[in-house]
Amino acid sequence: MNIVSERKYYDSRIKKIFTLKNNHKTSNLIILKDENIYYLTGFYGKDSGSILLIVDNDIHLLVNFIYLEQARKSAKNKNLNITCYKKNKFRELAKILEDYSFSSVGVEGKNISLTGFRKLEKLLSANSKRLVNIDGLVENLRIVKDEFEISKIKNACKITDKVFGSIINSGASAINKLSEIELACRIEQLMVKSNSEGRSFDTIVAYGKNSSMPHYSPQKIKEKGGLILMDFGCKFENYCSDMTRTIFTRNQKICNEFKKIYDIVLKAQLLAVENCREGVACGQLDRIARKFITSKGYGHNFRHRLGHGVGIEVHEEPAVTMENRTVLRENMVITIEPGIYIENFGGVRIEDMVIVGKNGCEVLYNSKKSFFILD
Amino acid sequence: MNIVSERKYYDSRIKKIFTLKNNHKTSNLIILKDENIYYLTGFYGKDSGSILLIVDNDIHLLVNFIYLEQARKSAKNKNLNITCYKKNKFRELAKILEDYSFSSVGVEGKNISLTGFRKLEKLLSANSKRLVNIDGLVENLRIVKDEFEISKIKNACKITDKVFGSIINSGASAINKLSEIELACRIEQLMVKSNSEGRSFDTIVAYGKNSSMPHYSPQKIKEKGGLILMDFGCKFENYCSDMTRTIFTRNQKICNEFKKIYDIVLKAQLLAVENCREGVACGQLDRIARKFITSKGYGHNFRHRLGHGVGIEVHEEPAVTMENRTVLRENMVITIEPGIYIENFGGVRIEDMVIVGKNGCEVLYNSKKSFFILD
Repeated sequence: MNIVSERKYYDSRIKKIFTLKNNHKTSNLIILKDENIYYLTGFYGKDSGSILLIVDNDIHLLVNFIYLEQARKSAKNKNLNITCYKKNKFRELAKILEDYSFSSVGVEGKNISLTGFRKLEKLLSANSKRLVNIDGLVENLRIVKDEFEISKIKNACKITDKVFGSIINSGASAINKLSEIELACRIEQLMVKSNSEGRSFDTIVAYGKNSSMPHYSPQKIKEKGGLILMDFGCKFENYCSDMTRTIFTRNQKICNEFKKIYDIVLKAQLLAVENCREGVACGQLDRIARKFITSKGYGHNFRHRLGHGVGIEVHEEPAVTMENRTVLRENMVITIEPGIYIENFGGVRIEDMVIVGKNGCEVLYNSKKSFFILD
Repeated sequence: MNIVSERKYYDSRIKKIFTLKNNHKTSNLIILKDENIYYLTGFYGKDSGSILLIVDNDIHLLVNFIYLEQARKSAKNKNLNITCYKKNKFRELAKILEDYSFSSVGVEGKNISLTGFRKLEKLLSANSKRLVNIDGLVENLRIVKDEFEISKIKNACKITDKVFGSIINSGASAINKLSEIELACRIEQLMVKSNSEGRSFDTIVAYGKNSSMPHYSPQKIKEKGGLILMDFGCKFENYCSDMTRTIFTRNQKICNEFKKIYDIVLKAQLLAVENCREGVACGQLDRIARKFITSKGYGHNFRHRLGHGVGIEVHEEPAVTMENRTVLRENMVITIEPGIYIENFGGVRIEDMVIVGKNGCEVLYNSKKSFFILD
C-alpha cells in the first residue's frame, strides 16, 4: 500500500478522536501509550516514552531525540508537528502547552505512573492547567478493527497456522529431541522465516506437568513423550496473532489420561465459538464456556478468563471475562481459549482467534483442534 | 546451589529491607514491580501483577490464582504468607491490611499507574490508612550486586561472548545471506543453544544506514556488504547480559568510510572503561566519553547516555547519564556504550558490561572490539 492510501487510515482515526474528545470533560488530550500513538500516527516507538498531544486542532508528536529519525520516517498524518526533547519530556510538553489557553487536558491514567503524574501536574499547574483522567479513550476506538487492520491480522494468523503445520510435520521424534526452550526458539525462528516480524509475545512451550501453569516460561527440560502445550503468535506489520494448541506424543498411557479433559476443553471452545457474535456480551460468552466446564466438574480448574482482544497489542480490549459487560460488535477480534489445569498433572488449553460478525464469527485458524497422538 | 543456601540470599535482602524501611516515612511497604518481588523472594511472575507486602514483621505475597502454583514452587523466604486473589487484587490487599493498626504504607510511585493509585487510595482511606511514595527503595538495594548475582551475570556474559564468536566464525558470506531479522533470530537461537534462557531484550540487528537509529527494529532487509550493528544479550538464571558490536563485511569502500568514526567510538569507550571505578560519579563517566567524542566534532551525534545498570532487568539503576550524580560503588554492574549516529549514513556503537571495582573495573566480555573487515 502506498503512503497516500495508508495516510487515509491514520487521518480518519485522528478525525474520530477529534469527534470523541468533544464528548469528554476536556477537548485536549495527552496520549502516552506507544500503541495508541502508533494507531493514530503510524509511528511505533516501543518503550520510547513518546507523547502525542491533540490540542485544539493541532497534533504534536514529542519524541526523545534518539527516535527523531524514526518518527519523521514513519509518522503518516498530514498535519503533524514533530518536536524532540533531550532530557525532560514533561517540561517540553508543558512548554508546548503554554501557547494554548485552555484550562484542562486529558491524560491516560492507566498509562502514566503516579510519579510521572505528580511531575506533570506540578508543571501544568504553574500555567493554570488541570489534568483529567481520560482512561481508555483510544483503546475503545481500537476495539473495532478496520479493513486495513483485519488484513494484517489475517496475515499474522496465516503465518501462525503455517508454523504450527511445520512443527507437526517434523514429527514426534524430532520434537521430543528438543527442550521446551529449544522448541519455543524453533517456533520463533519459523515465524521469522515465514515473513513475519517474529513473535508477538514470549512463546510458551510446556511439557507434561509444567502445562498446569498457564503462564509458564519454557525451561531447558526435555520430555520423553506425553503432552506438549504450545502458545505462540507472530507480528505482521505490527499486528499480532495468538494461538494455543495442546498436542500429544508417544506415551500412550499418559496421553489417554489427558483425553478426557482435552475433549471437555474442546467442546467448551467450540461452544463459545458457536455463540460468538455481535450483540453477545463478553461476560455472557465467558460464562457459556465456564458453565460447560463446571458442569463436567472442572470449574475450579479453568483458572483464567475465556479470552481477550488482539490487535497492535497481543492483549487488548475487550477482556473476555465473566464480569465484562462490553457487548461484542462486528469486526472486534478476540481469542477464545478455555483451559483446564490440574496441579502436578498438567493442563490443556485450546485457543483460536476470531473476528466477530453480525451473525456469527470467523475463526482465523485452520490448525487441527481434535485430539491426536503425533507419531 | 541448593534451596537452603539460595534462601540465605533472599532472606538477607528482606532483612536489609527491614532495616531500610525504618529510615523512611513509613515502615510498611507495598512492592509492585515484578523484578523487585523476584529480588526479594525468588518468585518471578513477569507481568503477573503480583504484590509483595512487608508490614510490621510480616511478609505477604499476593498473586493472581493463575500464578499460585508458580509462587509456591519458587518463593524461597522462610516466613512468607502466600495469598491468591481472583479478581480485585487491591481489594484483597486492603483486606490483609485491615488486620494491622499502622496509619501509613509506602507504595512505589513509578510502578503504580495513576488509575491504580486512585483505586488503592480509596480502599485504604476507608480504613484510615494513607499511601506515601517510596520510589526507588528496592531499586537502590539492587544497584550493588552480591556474589550470587555476579556469578549469574558472568555466566550470561560468557554465553554472549560465545554467541558473538559463532556469528563471526560463520563468515561474511553466511551472514550476508540473512536479512536483519533472520540474523537477529539466529543470534537468539544460538543463545538458547548455549544454555541461556534466551534473549534479555529484543535483539537489534541493523545493516548499513539503518544503524543510524539507535533503537532500530530489525526488518526483512538484506545487505550486500557493509556495516552490521548487533546489540543483543541473554538471560542466565534470570540475570541479563547486554553487548553491542559493530562489524563490517566485504564492501571495502563503505567500510573505510566508517573507519574514522569507529576509531573515535572505540577510543571513547576505552577511555570510559579506563576511568570506571568506585568513587567516580555516573555523570562524570558519561562526560569523559562525551567530551572526547565532542572534541572530534561528533558531540551532536552521540545521541544517548553512556550506559545503564544491568541485572535482573537489562536496563536498571544506575543510569549513566550526564546529569546523574550517583557515585559508582564496588560491585555495581553497568554498560559502557558510546555511539556516533549520522542520519542517512549509519551508526557505530560499541558496548561492554563491566563490574565496578575499588581501583578499576572488570570488563565482562572478551569479544574483539578493534575495527576489522570480516571475510
